[in-house]
Amino acid sequence: DDDRYPSRFWPEPRIADRQDPVVHGHAGDGPLSETELRFYRDNGYLTFDQLIGADELGACLGELDALRRDETVRHAAEAIIEPGSGELRSLFEVHRRSAVLRRLCAYPRLVAIARQLLGSEVYLHQSRINYKSGFRGKEFYWHSDFETWHMEDGIPAMRMVSCSVSLTPNTPHNGPLMIIPGSHQRYISCVGATPQAHYLASLRRQEVGVPDDASLMRLVEEFGIVAPTGPAGSVTFFDCNVMHGSNSNITPLPRSNVFFVYNSVHNTPAAPFCGLPPRPSFIAERRDFTPLPPHAAP
Amino acid sequence: DDDRYPSRFWPEPRIADRQDPVVHGHAGDGPLSETELRFYRDNGYLTFDQLIGADELGACLGELDALRRDETVRHAAEAIIEPGSGELRSLFEVHRRSAVLRRLCAYPRLVAIARQLLGSEVYLHQSRINYKSGFRGKEFYWHSDFETWHMEDGIPAMRMVSCSVSLTPNTPHNGPLMIIPGSHQRYISCVGATPQAHYLASLRRQEVGVPDDASLMRLVEEFGIVAPTGPAGSVTFFDCNVMHGSNSNITPLPRSNVFFVYNSVHNTPAAPFCGLPPRPSFIAERRDFTPLPPHAAP
Repeated sequence: DDDRYPSRFWPEPRIADRQDPVVHGHAGDGPLSETELRFYRDNGYLTFDQLIGADELGACLGELDALRRDETVRHAAEAIIEPGSGELRSLFEVHRRSAVLRRLCAYPRLVAIARQLLGSEVYLHQSRINYKSGFRGKEFYWHSDFETWHMEDGIPAMRMVSCSVSLTPNTPHNGPLMIIPGSHQRYISCVGATPQAHYLASLRRQEVGVPDDASLMRLVEEFGIVAPTGPAGSVTFFDCNVMHGSNSNITPLPRSNVFFVYNSVHNTPAAPFCGLPPRPSFIAERRDFTPLPPHAAP
Repeated sequence: DDDRYPSRFWPEPRIADRQDPVVHGHAGDGPLSETELRFYRDNGYLTFDQLIGADELGACLGELDALRRDETVRHAAEAIIEPGSGELRSLFEVHRRSAVLRRLCAYPRLVAIARQLLGSEVYLHQSRINYKSGFRGKEFYWHSDFETWHMEDGIPAMRMVSCSVSLTPNTPHNGPLMIIPGSHQRYISCVGATPQAHYLASLRRQEVGVPDDASLMRLVEEFGIVAPTGPAGSVTFFDCNVMHGSNSNITPLPRSNVFFVYNSVHNTPAAPFCGLPPRPSFIAERRDFTPLPPHAAP
């Protein structure tokens, strides 16, 4: 009865209004200006061409290549393998596996922005790396992360922010992240009950928790679509509820990114709102809510 | 032994130079300026935002919808059905099926441009409509049309031009046509022998006559990628040998176009260079080389 964002319950989709603020902090709290905060509030995302030092980036790229070549990684529970090609698509909980990526998730500028947007101390809800290969890179269908994190992980409120650090250039052509700016102000209740252990299938190809065509059409008609582009090292913060996805990639240019989800320490998970057991903690942290230090050495 | 563009013969791909002019006519011959001809020669394509009258466009759009809804059309040999979804992806030989589309292929401005580019009278080698649906529109992998038209239809020389008339807007996001500008100056010999009746599979998903990764990488490094965008009604002419393809389309905006291939009357098909029987005439005209009249009533 404290589920303010019900989904997967009704036989028809519904579009409701967001019930939480988008920006929880203030311009005085951190690195983002009033203008940047307003942009994020209105559009649900913010992109920076350069936020990470070149040395740090180089280390991360080396780490990605090493993880991708590691045969043991492919067999880990945290690894998501592409159906068909057998390629590594995602690897979760990289902040526990890799010291380099643990350092990146605590990178002071990233943490400071997350703290300011969420108006509190933050902890890491999820970390992963995503590989979208060149030539045959697969699409990710539209989704709101929050819908799943709420239903399957029990996150109560929209007080989370995702941070994607690109390790390769994002061009208009290599299947970049597409965002429906402003869609974070709506909440689409999806149709279809959550299957048991849904994550085993949904991380490869999601079929429940997916918005219906008519609702998507309405969002696009109202808000349009943007696809931020930028060089390797560019960083995009986006609200947990903004509708996003990406097309396939037939260009030779692969897309790789490191993806962190920061959650407010005041928004730790309850029991999943779908009524099933929670997903594994490598997908959704349920034990360690230690705040990330605001000024860790990079 | 008169095969100047061998392909599918060697165990390794090869990149050769084009042996035919790109522009066969002159600025004095027709509607295109010296600048436009030079652009086409260097890039292998030309785009126009407005070339077709609004009435004509409206009629074509109505015709497309009618054809798509026609159950008998779906069962025609000329219809290519999407594996999986069962949706109509392409319909060939529309100039024989539809008076509206027959009129469009003979539209004086289109024919005049084709005559000028090819430096001769032209006839219609192929016509089709392509539907890329919204939400679940599938990608088309990179290919040179000429490689297939040469190997499987017996077209001797690069003296053909394709013309795509968009019936819906092309945005950067809805899986637009991507072109490697300048790639028409190279010819990639593909690897793999042509299967019998290859077209039955290849029009759904091509696996022979597809360029290898390393050659594509070289082309993109040398030439880059462009994706012309434009409103409904925009027209793109592109050389028969320019490398092109498109990503998937998860946006709600479908993409539909009418596609004509004009061939020089001096370049009519011989026996297919792969040594197999030719493809059906609804894919590649082999009997009727009647020149399209230069000034037909629209």
